[in-house]
Amino acid sequence: MVAAALMTAPSPETGARKSGATRGRILDAAARTFRAKGYAGTTLNDIAAAAGMQAGSIFYHFASKEELLGEVLRIGIGRVFDAVRQSAAALAPDAPFEQRLCAAIGSHLAMLLKHGDYSSADIRIFGMVPDPVRRVHLRRRQAYGAWWRQLLAEGRERGAIRADLNPSLVRMLLLGAMNWSTEWYKPARGSIDAMAKTLCTLTLEGLLPRIPDLAPAGRGRRFRAG
Amino acid sequence: MVAAALMTAPSPETGARKSGATRGRILDAAARTFRAKGYAGTTLNDIAAAAGMQAGSIFYHFASKEELLGEVLRIGIGRVFDAVRQSAAALAPDAPFEQRLCAAIGSHLAMLLKHGDYSSADIRIFGMVPDPVRRVHLRRRQAYGAWWRQLLAEGRERGAIRADLNPSLVRMLLLGAMNWSTEWYKPARGSIDAMAKTLCTLTLEGLLPRIPDLAPAGRGRRFRAG
Repeated sequence: MVAAALMTAPSPETGARKSGATRGRILDAAARTFRAKGYAGTTLNDIAAAAGMQAGSIFYHFASKEELLGEVLRIGIGRVFDAVRQSAAALAPDAPFEQRLCAAIGSHLAMLLKHGDYSSADIRIFGMVPDPVRRVHLRRRQAYGAWWRQLLAEGRERGAIRADLNPSLVRMLLLGAMNWSTEWYKPARGSIDAMAKTLCTLTLEGLLPRIPDLAPAGRGRRFRAG
Repeated sequence: MVAAALMTAPSPETGARKSGATRGRILDAAARTFRAKGYAGTTLNDIAAAAGMQAGSIFYHFASKEELLGEVLRIGIGRVFDAVRQSAAALAPDAPFEQRLCAAIGSHLAMLLKHGDYSSADIRIFGMVPDPVRRVHLRRRQAYGAWWRQLLAEGRERGAIRADLNPSLVRMLLLGAMNWSTEWYKPARGSIDAMAKTLCTLTLEGLLPRIPDLAPAGRGRRFRAG
């Protein structure tokens, strides 16, 4: 009897895992629904229906639609930032700027498009979210922006990139080229990896043809991503 | 008396002008409200309040929220496309590719940001709009995309741009860098013109430093926008 009871009653860990899985299912449903209907246009009933559960069950995990929104935004940018930092940490300390930039572009795009509902919800509803959520999220965006600012500043200090382009504009234009991809990217357009390499080469070298390599060895004029 | 009647009764043209002005006021209010609240989250009452009129007055000009949405989207992309075509038509027929690209980037950005509510409404709510409106709007987006495809194809035919980058990816990344600016651009970041020049130089030349000009005269290695 004791053994039978042990077999049917979930262990505390299983309970926690299940609860975490339910939480994740609600968040996925919320991201999908916010993306499709906007923030004001989404009700907790919509999210519950998308998650395949009763609206009442959501309250066990989240106090309000606003709390769900905050979590969706936090997870969306957090996953991208973590992926970018991890890919940077995996490089050799003396890795050249070109390699750092391409690793960051590759991991930003891969994570952004892997969790497209979260990223796209962010893009589509950021302007519509209540002020308290927006303020917190803006600070996260700024922290992530600061990471890219630092990357470009280091490249400039090392003399790896030209000094005549406003680094703040370069950063915003580059992040824009990446973020907008949630609105158009489909696998039929090519792999995410191919897109990352194209953006990296374009950002480093530009569209104009380059004349044959006349630079000293080790300072290749054509950096090849990947 | 006749003279007095002529002075007080609006002429047919004045009536049409006033009606056009009211229509424009409703559309501006609709764009602003769609941008802020999404499509599902916006009611005709919200739009009427933003336009400073009664909801009933809107029906004199537009049959439904869907019709208003269709007009906002049509106007948003139409203005940008017209501006880009006009700036291209103003160039000499033999203008070099660099000049064509920079003119297109400059006019796209200027019109996009001048009418930020329309562009941003498009960006934020496109994924949320009813299917019939979306289908029509997608065809307009595709026509505009085809203009850029043609520009890049001509650059390639003339040998003005390198042949090893997927032109479709280049186009989507470039449009993304521009379109995303409605989400972050403020005059405090610098002028729209400065942003256009930065994007043009970045797209043509890239971030890497270039070695001193060794190309034949007339084929400058550093193209300067504007």
